[in-house]
Amino acid sequence: MIIVMNPTATQTEIDNVIARVTAAGLKVHLSEGKLRTIIGLIGEKKLMVQLPLEAMAGVEKAISVTAGYKLVSREFKNEDTVIDVGGVLVGGPHIVVMAGPCAVESREQLLESARIVKEAGAQFLRGGAYKPRTSPYSFQGLEEKGLEMLAEARSLHGLKIVTEVVDIESVPVVGAYADVLQIGARNMQNFQLLKAVGKSGMPVLLKRGIAATINEWLHAAEYIMSEGNFNVMFCERGIRTFEEYTRNTLDLSAVAALKNLSHLPVIVDPSHGTGLWKLVRPMAKAAVAGGADGLMIEVHPNPAEALSDGNQSLTPANYQALMSEVAAVARAVDRRMA
Amino acid sequence: MIIVMNPTATQTEIDNVIARVTAAGLKVHLSEGKLRTIIGLIGEKKLMVQLPLEAMAGVEKAISVTAGYKLVSREFKNEDTVIDVGGVLVGGPHIVVMAGPCAVESREQLLESARIVKEAGAQFLRGGAYKPRTSPYSFQGLEEKGLEMLAEARSLHGLKIVTEVVDIESVPVVGAYADVLQIGARNMQNFQLLKAVGKSGMPVLLKRGIAATINEWLHAAEYIMSEGNFNVMFCERGIRTFEEYTRNTLDLSAVAALKNLSHLPVIVDPSHGTGLWKLVRPMAKAAVAGGADGLMIEVHPNPAEALSDGNQSLTPANYQALMSEVAAVARAVDRRMA
Amino acid sequence: MIIVMNPTATQTEIDNVIARVTAAGLKVHLSEGKLRTIIGLIGEKKLMVQLPLEAMAGVEKAISVTAGYKLVSREFKNEDTVIDVGGVLVGGPHIVVMAGPCAVESREQLLESARIVKEAGAQFLRGGAYKPRTSPYSFQGLEEKGLEMLAEARSLHGLKIVTEVVDIESVPVVGAYADVLQIGARNMQNFQLLKAVGKSGMPVLLKRGIAATINEWLHAAEYIMSEGNFNVMFCERGIRTFEEYTRNTLDLSAVAALKNLSHLPVIVDPSHGTGLWKLVRPMAKAAVAGGADGLMIEVHPNPAEALSDGNQSLTPANYQALMSEVAAVARAVDRRMA
Amino acid sequence: MIIVMNPTATQTEIDNVIARVTAAGLKVHLSEGKLRTIIGLIGEKKLMVQLPLEAMAGVEKAISVTAGYKLVSREFKNEDTVIDVGGVLVGGPHIVVMAGPCAVESREQLLESARIVKEAGAQFLRGGAYKPRTSPYSFQGLEEKGLEMLAEARSLHGLKIVTEVVDIESVPVVGAYADVLQIGARNMQNFQLLKAVGKSGMPVLLKRGIAATINEWLHAAEYIMSEGNFNVMFCERGIRTFEEYTRNTLDLSAVAALKNLSHLPVIVDPSHGTGLWKLVRPMAKAAVAGGADGLMIEVHPNPAEALSDGNQSLTPANYQALMSEVAAVARAVDRRMA
Repeated sequence: MIIVMNPTATQTEIDNVIARVTAAGLKVHLSEGKLRTIIGLIGEKKLMVQLPLEAMAGVEKAISVTAGYKLVSREFKNEDTVIDVGGVLVGGPHIVVMAGPCAVESREQLLESARIVKEAGAQFLRGGAYKPRTSPYSFQGLEEKGLEMLAEARSLHGLKIVTEVVDIESVPVVGAYADVLQIGARNMQNFQLLKAVGKSGMPVLLKRGIAATINEWLHAAEYIMSEGNFNVMFCERGIRTFEEYTRNTLDLSAVAALKNLSHLPVIVDPSHGTGLWKLVRPMAKAAVAGGADGLMIEVHPNPAEALSDGNQSLTPANYQALMSEVAAVARAVDRRMA
Repeated sequence: MIIVMNPTATQTEIDNVIARVTAAGLKVHLSEGKLRTIIGLIGEKKLMVQLPLEAMAGVEKAISVTAGYKLVSREFKNEDTVIDVGGVLVGGPHIVVMAGPCAVESREQLLESARIVKEAGAQFLRGGAYKPRTSPYSFQGLEEKGLEMLAEARSLHGLKIVTEVVDIESVPVVGAYADVLQIGARNMQNFQLLKAVGKSGMPVLLKRGIAATINEWLHAAEYIMSEGNFNVMFCERGIRTFEEYTRNTLDLSAVAALKNLSHLPVIVDPSHGTGLWKLVRPMAKAAVAGGADGLMIEVHPNPAEALSDGNQSLTPANYQALMSEVAAVARAVDRRMA
Repeated sequence: MIIVMNPTATQTEIDNVIARVTAAGLKVHLSEGKLRTIIGLIGEKKLMVQLPLEAMAGVEKAISVTAGYKLVSREFKNEDTVIDVGGVLVGGPHIVVMAGPCAVESREQLLESARIVKEAGAQFLRGGAYKPRTSPYSFQGLEEKGLEMLAEARSLHGLKIVTEVVDIESVPVVGAYADVLQIGARNMQNFQLLKAVGKSGMPVLLKRGIAATINEWLHAAEYIMSEGNFNVMFCERGIRTFEEYTRNTLDLSAVAALKNLSHLPVIVDPSHGTGLWKLVRPMAKAAVAGGADGLMIEVHPNPAEALSDGNQSLTPANYQALMSEVAAVARAVDRRMA
Repeated sequence: MIIVMNPTATQTEIDNVIARVTAAGLKVHLSEGKLRTIIGLIGEKKLMVQLPLEAMAGVEKAISVTAGYKLVSREFKNEDTVIDVGGVLVGGPHIVVMAGPCAVESREQLLESARIVKEAGAQFLRGGAYKPRTSPYSFQGLEEKGLEMLAEARSLHGLKIVTEVVDIESVPVVGAYADVLQIGARNMQNFQLLKAVGKSGMPVLLKRGIAATINEWLHAAEYIMSEGNFNVMFCERGIRTFEEYTRNTLDLSAVAALKNLSHLPVIVDPSHGTGLWKLVRPMAKAAVAGGADGLMIEVHPNPAEALSDGNQSLTPANYQALMSEVAAVARAVDRRMA
């Protein structure tokens, strides 16, 4: 942390700031320029962030020069993390695919979806049993019945299950059926839930909040890891911008940024990220070319019958085409499909 | 809902759309133009939103012409809602003020804050006992001990208490101490929590999500109201934009918009909304002039000692000045301070 | 400027940075911490901004601690600037009002508008003769004929004229008819045009770019002022955000921010800022309560007949109501209508 | 255009709307629902956009169902446009590369840059001679001297020249030296300049405005094409969002969107798009995998010496690595480097 004093700061004001930070257990490094004094703070980040530095007399601004997270960072762990989900490795040389319907709607729909995605090469079946919806009057999911259907699909087709958990209460029940717990975009800063899935020890797929900075996203992962759970994967799913043509703006530069800043795997969801099925195939290829470790894709046996997000779901034929196109791109960047 | 067909849509595609929506229990109103056919849907909104209309062959777009909420709307209830919080009325002709520190830090700090805000005319004491923080290493609040201090301040100074509840588990304990349950920005779409505070029946202050549209905010209130709890007040606290000078962009036009669309009261929080104490006074005046029913203001006996958000807290002297300035503006728009 | 070196930066890298900035004519102030070295730069801002500091080996980040503008700042000139537009003072104790139609459509429409706004108390007539429009097929303005009508309205009603100039070529012709040259939002960073209106010496109303930060806006004003023209007034007209209910998000906190950072007057345009006539009156009151020096309001004798932006224009009756409501608010903040 | 009337609209209001649009030369198609009447408009888009429909009594909203552009659209021309720039084809099966420094700084720097980019396979040399800069005190470019250097580099290395034109006055001089006129982000809605480059007939590279929607961008291209110049290529260069880690948010989904909506070629600039040289290589690969027709890349012989944007420029070695990596991705999507 660097404190930049005003050009008009008095010696007393400077002394007061130094006294205050010293009292908090920090050391200071003073730089007295011709125009202004700069005070560098040395010590525990935790102590610094609790000081209201910019409210102190004579302070112009306080600038953080180090991150507020630790466990998620490349500095903490340089080599890429590879998460073992029951034998399927996420984050290594292979590209994983998580595919399936947005929501579990019925046993038939789900088993048919599972068959389709398995045949074309997915390792994970996705599908929501608990659905957070903007309106209280929209379809909210089949809940535990949906989880049972997911488990049946797993045993029939040998797929891993990734599905969303929306509150602390349902962590145990979702955890009993799922292989990966998904934290949805709306809950990225539901810190109690992050701690709960941290304590569960299960692999977690952490979706980016709709307006979350990369920095906040890294901190959200830190919440999970600070509970001792290192099995965290990020999932970029688009951010909210002024653009109205796409449902969200899929931020692929966040993938490259995360790969620089963190050792954790990164998945990309071009279905929610664009909201338009026509854009899913090109963006899936772009994601893999840009360094993503996996894809999350909405597939529905019949998108026009879907109860949720049908407009962004791929047909089986489109999904198969995507898989072979993505495989070619994966080879071009020295990766292989899992 | 209006379905606009492509100019190239075939009669079969049109018939399929009609068959599908009819099967879902809706009626249609057909408009066959020279260039394109338009299909109006008549019936329950609930049935419409579950149809993936834009995924159907021949459909160019589906346009919603009615809101997905009901209880929050001016159509449902034309006269302004006035919420009675133990004798203090929110939403009537008077402007209420909720003031106090961002976080409860100690008994001394809180009681001193309570004294200051009471003297200058607040009706509510604000102060967080549970603090959602970006980093797991930041101060997280005094929890139940903080609630006890709030209750003590209430009995000493005759103030009502508004404080945040961050998860379902703590709704009973926060409800036991508070007069108004605050839903923070990060939880605006934590639907399980919205339902829980809805079931509590207690007055709820619903802060706007950092990137929530007015429409999503209205729907979030609908979640609470659909549980039978009509005691909901909105709180505008700034949205996330590209602007970096202010912490958030306080959207005062949302106040006027909400007053047109809904009958519920609207509070404005210029402290979080700007993040800069120098902007709090002008924005408080602007909020009241623009139609807000109340203000939420951060005040700290000594902002430079605050453990959280000291940079945006007012000193006691600034707060007193704000109160007399706001009173003058209130009179100019035919309101009075409560 | 402060250069923060990486914790792993070598002495050679540090020496190279110092050598480079010294060669550029700057002095350095070194602060060697336990973890990292920090290099403060002393000298001309102009020299600093041309150095690609973050591209140099060993540099973690370069942080600007001083503004890149000068003439617009409160540091340069502490007292408020008052601009004399032919006897009407902008920026002093009085609130000025600029009102009229979005576009000049016809002589009848303009003269009728002028009469209405004059009667209710405006000092300026606004109206576009050159209209920048998203589509090349939309109405583009009456050009010089429109300017002639504006001049006629001026002589008939004693109003000052503010109208937009869209390119360098038309600065002389617009300048020949107008009292204030308006730079529209799309041209806020059309630097050649800024220099041209700077050279004209005429009063300039500088609208904020649709996605311009306050900092960029201040720099745009600096372009005008650096040509020797100090008669610049800002006009906040809303920024582009994710919100779709309003046409733009009117950022009133920018008014308070500008009044802190700069000595120049600030006008607010709630008509473009919200795009909805129902929101214009509350936001006009909020603007004045929040410290604006004036308002720009769209008024049309018959909004339903307007060729441009009819949806946000006030009827004469609404405009008159606005003027008396705003006058009450102005008195509450110790201002008077001009 | 579809006009949705209020549920409470009277027959007179409906009749008035119909009379008004009919008088404007449009035909109507009436759909009288149980709850509300919907009026479809048939006729020239140009006539519709000039009507202030939402300001008319009884109208709830007016919804545009067709685009306001024509010449740029896939409906107007289904096959991809291929632009012939002196023998180099843009928009066909080959990926073109435009590389070079952000700004022309000196003859040595430019010729060395040209040699480097030519050797590694670029077809175009980029480099700004006129630089729009936020601050009037930043380096503004070498102007015509810079153009002469670009022309010399062209004749030495057989590269085409793409460089920015910032105002109407300099269209002839820039056109005399350049092969492609670049319209920068800040000028995307400088409509006078768009018309001027339209009239020039020269190939135009149209960068996306910092907060321009895809729809506005298409309209900007329409301005150029409506002057008879069909040689327009888009260049995605990042949009402004809340994210601060990257300089802009590179919106690759816009590439796929444009390829669906328009027949014009699309170039991607990952250098400005991210602002961080470490992200340029992954995003260049992502762009080509996602369907871009070419890349614009900043390369500098010595980024640490650059006068402008050194932090985002690639070193020669990084650029060469990028070119071979991108070639592999191009083959994976059935494209080849030009």
